[in-house]
Amino acid sequence: MMNFSDKLAKAIREKNNPTVMGLDPKLEYIPGHIREQAVKVSRNPFQAAAESIAAFNFALMDAVADIVPAVKPQLAYYELYGTEGLRAFDLTCRYAREKGLLVIADGKRNDIGSTAEAYSGAFLGRTVLDGAGEVPVFDADALTVNGYLGEDGIKPFLKDCDKHGKGIFVLVKTSNPSSGQLQDLMLSDGRAIYEMMGDLVNDWGASHNGICGYSSVGAVVGATYPRQLEEMRRRMPHTWILVPGYGAQGGKADDVAKAFGADGLGAIVNASRSLMCAWQQDAWKTSHRETEFAEATRAEAIRMRNDINEAIRRK
Amino acid sequence: MMNFSDKLAKAIREKNNPTVMGLDPKLEYIPGHIREQAVKVSRNPFQAAAESIAAFNFALMDAVADIVPAVKPQLAYYELYGTEGLRAFDLTCRYAREKGLLVIADGKRNDIGSTAEAYSGAFLGRTVLDGAGEVPVFDADALTVNGYLGEDGIKPFLKDCDKHGKGIFVLVKTSNPSSGQLQDLMLSDGRAIYEMMGDLVNDWGASHNGICGYSSVGAVVGATYPRQLEEMRRRMPHTWILVPGYGAQGGKADDVAKAFGADGLGAIVNASRSLMCAWQQDAWKTSHRETEFAEATRAEAIRMRNDINEAIRRK
Repeated sequence: MMNFSDKLAKAIREKNNPTVMGLDPKLEYIPGHIREQAVKVSRNPFQAAAESIAAFNFALMDAVADIVPAVKPQLAYYELYGTEGLRAFDLTCRYAREKGLLVIADGKRNDIGSTAEAYSGAFLGRTVLDGAGEVPVFDADALTVNGYLGEDGIKPFLKDCDKHGKGIFVLVKTSNPSSGQLQDLMLSDGRAIYEMMGDLVNDWGASHNGICGYSSVGAVVGATYPRQLEEMRRRMPHTWILVPGYGAQGGKADDVAKAFGADGLGAIVNASRSLMCAWQQDAWKTSHRETEFAEATRAEAIRMRNDINEAIRRK
Repeated sequence: MMNFSDKLAKAIREKNNPTVMGLDPKLEYIPGHIREQAVKVSRNPFQAAAESIAAFNFALMDAVADIVPAVKPQLAYYELYGTEGLRAFDLTCRYAREKGLLVIADGKRNDIGSTAEAYSGAFLGRTVLDGAGEVPVFDADALTVNGYLGEDGIKPFLKDCDKHGKGIFVLVKTSNPSSGQLQDLMLSDGRAIYEMMGDLVNDWGASHNGICGYSSVGAVVGATYPRQLEEMRRRMPHTWILVPGYGAQGGKADDVAKAFGADGLGAIVNASRSLMCAWQQDAWKTSHRETEFAEATRAEAIRMRNDINEAIRRK
């Protein structure tokens, strides 16, 4: 079985595109004609939301599957629509797999060992069912996790990474304005908390390296903090960096370029709103009607790919 | 509308019981006769798991609803059974409400502001649906959250706390063996990270106090670290402390007693496995058969209540 890290490297190389499409489907992002159709075929408003989300995500994946290596559904936006929303998440993961897209489930899960094991089973591993034995559940390729509980909240995920060729991305330096309130504080040994977390990621990932030179234990470092991104690239030389914050949050191509290694690999840049809502953006809204939202997303995905690849080359 | 903190104080006083029953329904915890029946009435193994979990949880809640003020379903164990598992979570929340039990959803959710808003909508607030307007989703009374992202990952929850009489419990010092790997590290200003997180909880909670003197912004501090529990009780005088780690994890009544204020309030102690699997414990397995699991849980809930109340009185 291929290591997740090598799967990611292969997918990025094949499509020459180190980006991931975030699928954060707030209902208000979804074009009216999809939502109207969903209401017509559904028995209740929650089901209609799920139908809208699934139809929207499927159309977006259809539009970019040949050029983008991965999608990152953000669990909060599925949970926001209840059990039906989770059904849409499940359908989205299945459709992505069919289309050959890697799935990074963005759940930022964390808990004590026995409970982390359950989260890992749900998203990366297997569950045991009466009358069915061991079966996969959501079966994503990777999951974002929070390391506040230390290594026994991480180890259960590592076990499933090894067993099933999966990966994790541990929060190190997040993209939000207040991320420094905790993460930038200085420890008595002279390290900032995010640096210490990066060192833990190095340790946790050390025995999970792929042939490509990077580990299946990745890190999240936001594009909105380019100085720290550059620093953490050096500090975690074998760590895939999942970079949120490009596009709508303000991160630029030259910022995210700092996340890549000398080999041009080692990072994958996420954009959610700027891709999902491309049809509403100044750049595309004159050339694309609402019903052409998927074409607008494809155009923006190509622009983003080229923007970032050029910035990597310039570096 | 009553502040969550006051709801919790009222429920604890009425039942003279500062404990919460954790509902972490691994399939292997559920008695065989429930699982066999569930398989018979279900169309597939995932549905059977959900039926087993719901039937088990309902029986446990029936057994203790008049003596226990709250339940704490742990989301990982529902996600482990996929969308059907989440349906069991939803049914569990609804049934708890019908029985007059407060629901603390244990999800340890965390993300940047816009996404934290979606989590908050899912568990504490409302969602907006086509054809239905603003509706509650899982509608728990409180949610556990992780503060690694700082205040803009917390504020959206506070908004729903105020608007809908809900609460949060922020991870401060967790009960697991490796919690010190990050949480005990010393900052350059002389505070440990968990102390600094406690200070943030004080700040975040300051404007959310109830009439009872405690805030709707609570903290999680594990019973397995009694020294820190005692310290954090003093350091966060207006903070409800949710105390995991009693029972199966090794925390004793005299340990958890340290979490309570001089008024005998201010903490709620969780037990999951020792209550759910009481029928398998040495103390109850000779007096209770497997089919009498709910009676064993009630007996253990009474023992736990008395054990903790006596330790609080001894203090």
